[in-house]
Amino acid sequence: MATMNRRIVLASRPHGEPTPAHFRLEEARVPSPRPGEVLLRTRWLSLDPYMRGRMSAAKSYVAPVGIGEPMTGGTVSEVVRSDHPDFAAGTLVSAFGGWQDFSVSDGTGLRKVDPALAPPTTALGILGMPGMTAYTGLLNIGRPRPGETVAVAAAAGPVGSLVGQIARLKGARAVGIAGGPEKCAHLIDDLGFDAAVDHRSDDLPAALAAACPDGIDVYFENVGGAVFEAVLPLLNDFSRIPVCGLVSGYNATEPPPGPDRAPALMRAILTKRLQLQGFIVWDFASQIDEFEAAVGGWLREARVRYREDIVEGLENAPEAFIGLLKGQNFGKLIVRVA
Amino acid sequence: MATMNRRIVLASRPHGEPTPAHFRLEEARVPSPRPGEVLLRTRWLSLDPYMRGRMSAAKSYVAPVGIGEPMTGGTVSEVVRSDHPDFAAGTLVSAFGGWQDFSVSDGTGLRKVDPALAPPTTALGILGMPGMTAYTGLLNIGRPRPGETVAVAAAAGPVGSLVGQIARLKGARAVGIAGGPEKCAHLIDDLGFDAAVDHRSDDLPAALAAACPDGIDVYFENVGGAVFEAVLPLLNDFSRIPVCGLVSGYNATEPPPGPDRAPALMRAILTKRLQLQGFIVWDFASQIDEFEAAVGGWLREARVRYREDIVEGLENAPEAFIGLLKGQNFGKLIVRVA
Repeated sequence: MATMNRRIVLASRPHGEPTPAHFRLEEARVPSPRPGEVLLRTRWLSLDPYMRGRMSAAKSYVAPVGIGEPMTGGTVSEVVRSDHPDFAAGTLVSAFGGWQDFSVSDGTGLRKVDPALAPPTTALGILGMPGMTAYTGLLNIGRPRPGETVAVAAAAGPVGSLVGQIARLKGARAVGIAGGPEKCAHLIDDLGFDAAVDHRSDDLPAALAAACPDGIDVYFENVGGAVFEAVLPLLNDFSRIPVCGLVSGYNATEPPPGPDRAPALMRAILTKRLQLQGFIVWDFASQIDEFEAAVGGWLREARVRYREDIVEGLENAPEAFIGLLKGQNFGKLIVRVA
Repeated sequence: MATMNRRIVLASRPHGEPTPAHFRLEEARVPSPRPGEVLLRTRWLSLDPYMRGRMSAAKSYVAPVGIGEPMTGGTVSEVVRSDHPDFAAGTLVSAFGGWQDFSVSDGTGLRKVDPALAPPTTALGILGMPGMTAYTGLLNIGRPRPGETVAVAAAAGPVGSLVGQIARLKGARAVGIAGGPEKCAHLIDDLGFDAAVDHRSDDLPAALAAACPDGIDVYFENVGGAVFEAVLPLLNDFSRIPVCGLVSGYNATEPPPGPDRAPALMRAILTKRLQLQGFIVWDFASQIDEFEAAVGGWLREARVRYREDIVEGLENAPEAFIGLLKGQNFGKLIVRVA
């Protein structure tokens, strides 16, 4: 077994867009598990937009990554040494191994991954955190009813693509917003969305309005910014807006110039009686079994589909992550580490 | 009986602050009820911030008042002639009589007012639309729990004053925000609020923070603007924000200058998992009996109190209404018409 642990640490905090210089690949000893712990070897690392928040010192729902510490991240890892009764060596688990080859765990938060049920990488995508984000946010907050219109941004990503597919399974009309004709075609041809809108359109508001002739009843918010501005006038009374992510603003260094749109947003909330609710997936942690049963079932019945974008090699994680923030991935972004 | 009906019509639509010139007092014939209708004489007219929205052509949750039409408004009226089996002449009712001496109704929306139970003007305040707004918005959306902090703006007004009192009855801590030391003293001394903050303070954010040492769990939004800006940093994770009114912006003619605060608001919604929900009282129309039983009971037991600001004479309604938008009233603003 390797004796060195490659890991990517946060070298400095970005002001604006991260660059490769904000990360540093270094080698350390393979950590030694203590009694009751397991040693995990990272097989696949998940890259997700929320990680941009971890690079900043600003207050958020969890503490930031410290300078010089490995970047955090979800992984599918293999137990290579075990002193834990529940996880024998050789077991595949989903874990929070971070951006590194090896990690240790006392078992907290580990979930076994059965490669006979689904490809292990799905534990980082449709059957993992992104899938559960889509499922819980849409059904608890969005609550689409048959015949309603559900719009979702970043629709070709792992959260958005499942939001649209679940919306359809619940009898709603799914409208996806994505970047570029290839992603839009994927939404329609592969995932069965009812309509797709390219957010790079010359006239996004008009294109979105054309795709939503009955307005929008649920808007699943992943991106913010110009897309949200285009959505706002189309929202019907009593719309629900799960606020899941705001990736378009994650690299912002200061508030955008005026005018101040906050009063108009509040006025829309009031007069249309909108319901906006922010959430993170762990707010619905108690629903994990329900989620796995439902989406796992749909996946086995081929009623939902997913797409992955696999990058080879831990050393390429920073560049892939920087691209993710620009929408350069196409499907769930995963790094094959070992 | 009078043969002429004085009425105040919308003369023109204001751009910004309304002035007396936007209203016109005119006389018309007393309307003649048709079969099945009642003729109502206005005794008291309610003046409320929402009426500013009715003066504008902008899309809202109901149609605007037409130019040359009487301003709409809730009233306590007396049935002076009746061809309706449920409402005998002499009965007092709450109605939507508008800014005029007389109106007709087919009975829709009329509710009898029993002066033996409470002063009739309470049907326009604590036992009427403002009271029901406070009750339904706070309990359905705000959902305060014992020990939580409930902050409310325009706290000396008829909605805010009941929000704070109900919050306390539910075991929460009530913090009121109002304009000037007299109103703040009223909140503490007469209504039992735990703290009061003058929004004219030199440093409102600091004053509010000092009044909310454990942050804010429910913010009942009546005003928007600078008060909301001061509230936002104090909101705890999972706060609920019933959005009931935004009076500070009702006279705005254009979006305020930048920076654009909307992205920061959305970020707060996401990271703090806030829940914002707009509502109007009629969204909860089915709860009117529950509301009347609950608040009527508290009123009889002297567990809630209210204050009225009575203006004499229909002709003074425009000036009083203009003052209302500036916070010049102290308590529920009512015009005694006859």
